[in-house]
Amino acid sequence: MGNKIRVAIVGYGNIGKQVLETVLCTPDFELAGLVRRSIANLPPELQAVKVVTDIKELEKVDVAILCLPTRMVSISAKAILALGINTIDSFDIHTKIWDLRQELDVEAKKHQAVAIVSAGWDPGSDSVIRTLMQAMAPKGVTYTNFGPGMSMGHTVAAKTIEGVKDALSMTIPLGEGIHRREVYIELKDGYKFDEVATAIKNDNYFINDETHVEQVESVEALKNMRHGVKLVRKGVSGKTENQQFEFDMRINNPALTAQILVACARASMKQRPGAYTLIEIPPVDLLEGEKENLIKKLV
Amino acid sequence: MGNKIRVAIVGYGNIGKQVLETVLCTPDFELAGLVRRSIANLPPELQAVKVVTDIKELEKVDVAILCLPTRMVSISAKAILALGINTIDSFDIHTKIWDLRQELDVEAKKHQAVAIVSAGWDPGSDSVIRTLMQAMAPKGVTYTNFGPGMSMGHTVAAKTIEGVKDALSMTIPLGEGIHRREVYIELKDGYKFDEVATAIKNDNYFINDETHVEQVESVEALKNMRHGVKLVRKGVSGKTENQQFEFDMRINNPALTAQILVACARASMKQRPGAYTLIEIPPVDLLEGEKENLIKKLV
Repeated sequence: MGNKIRVAIVGYGNIGKQVLETVLCTPDFELAGLVRRSIANLPPELQAVKVVTDIKELEKVDVAILCLPTRMVSISAKAILALGINTIDSFDIHTKIWDLRQELDVEAKKHQAVAIVSAGWDPGSDSVIRTLMQAMAPKGVTYTNFGPGMSMGHTVAAKTIEGVKDALSMTIPLGEGIHRREVYIELKDGYKFDEVATAIKNDNYFINDETHVEQVESVEALKNMRHGVKLVRKGVSGKTENQQFEFDMRINNPALTAQILVACARASMKQRPGAYTLIEIPPVDLLEGEKENLIKKLV
Repeated sequence: MGNKIRVAIVGYGNIGKQVLETVLCTPDFELAGLVRRSIANLPPELQAVKVVTDIKELEKVDVAILCLPTRMVSISAKAILALGINTIDSFDIHTKIWDLRQELDVEAKKHQAVAIVSAGWDPGSDSVIRTLMQAMAPKGVTYTNFGPGMSMGHTVAAKTIEGVKDALSMTIPLGEGIHRREVYIELKDGYKFDEVATAIKNDNYFINDETHVEQVESVEALKNMRHGVKLVRKGVSGKTENQQFEFDMRINNPALTAQILVACARASMKQRPGAYTLIEIPPVDLLEGEKENLIKKLV
């Protein structure tokens, strides 16, 4: 490997913080710096970190890990790819992943760079498991059961409902890919709980699921980053029925997302120019070390 | 895709039979024929199949699936790669996989062909899971727990012990990668059970594991192809401890092996010349269909 991979972290929310921690403890990486909207009021842990407002101020960046809201990924990735810098994102709107990949594929090839899109755990590592399960039993159904854990998307959706001061939406798996939503809210003064609860249940994010809303004194006191998923497939290999596969994980959500982003940053250095989803990347490329040793250890 | 992938099956034991069944029910494949040592005494299900003793007698073979004992893989694969035909094998001696890959890599590149080695479930799909788990939590230990199920290797080893008429060795997982062996034997006339049992327990295949030997009237009555594996990793993502991952499958052993061999035959058509293990192949290449549809469905 020789030289370390020089990485820029773009954004410093939940995921950005975890990516910083992960990059700093990963031997084959070197932090080029952190890109934020403002360099004022830096928290203490960033005192020793190079923080800039434009990635062009950083030197010799190989790859940028985008820790941005999904809706900002496309614009930011294209601007960075245009500099010849690889990008990794955890874009999470499943129905728009292909379009993003195609957009970034053009830009990446034009500038001899690599983009890896939707590099989290779902979409991301779960996608790899689903792909492998389908290869092992082509006929059958794969169920993705999320939780119990906090859903970022549903939490944000609940917070936008009028009358909600703070909210947290938990996803509870009921099996076979069906989920219940448990939404904990603090109410703004002057609003009635029943009306706000009904508005939440009728929101697009919630209307198709069994949804329970509960008023609490402190949403903050409930917050934790534990999450999980259970992927289940019962299918047919050749003509043989009843082949059963399960993948089950219990994880800290942003820590796992950050780790996968960093692994994909490494993998991006080994791909030809273009954009990729995780199922298009040889799994061994995610790992540190010589291929010979990895194959001897893992195969 | 257009044209179907033309496949030759080499060998017709447990795995070869399953591969034949699987190829015949896989829409993007076409059977070029079956290669056996002899074309005499064909079983009824082969009456409609082209059976030959030399792969050169088959027309336009894209890929050969080697359903041969592990010790015969290297010679057979090299001869077939020299014809410019891709090879897929399920070579299963973990310590020698890298050497086989290197040998076949030279031959494959020389003849513009692709070899995929050790394409079963362990080594094989389990290797992909182990790789992915390590990417998600780089620090930690992965335990591979086999069974309950019949171990082919241990069964063969038990059969070679003097005084054993027939045998079957079951692998029972005790957790954390430790296994118990349960060996069922029929005794030859004139041998004492206790002496034979001791000889089995002292054999290299068994001496390091807790081994129970039981005499039965009919080994045949116990035979079944059900197997399973549970991969467990508890590890660290970044600096976050206690990330937990499990992969658990309960499967018909030869049916799964055959299905993975066929998926790898498909993947071989999409790789550049050379030899690969399963962790070096983009998972999406294992699947039938257009990449756009697969990504939209699975990612």
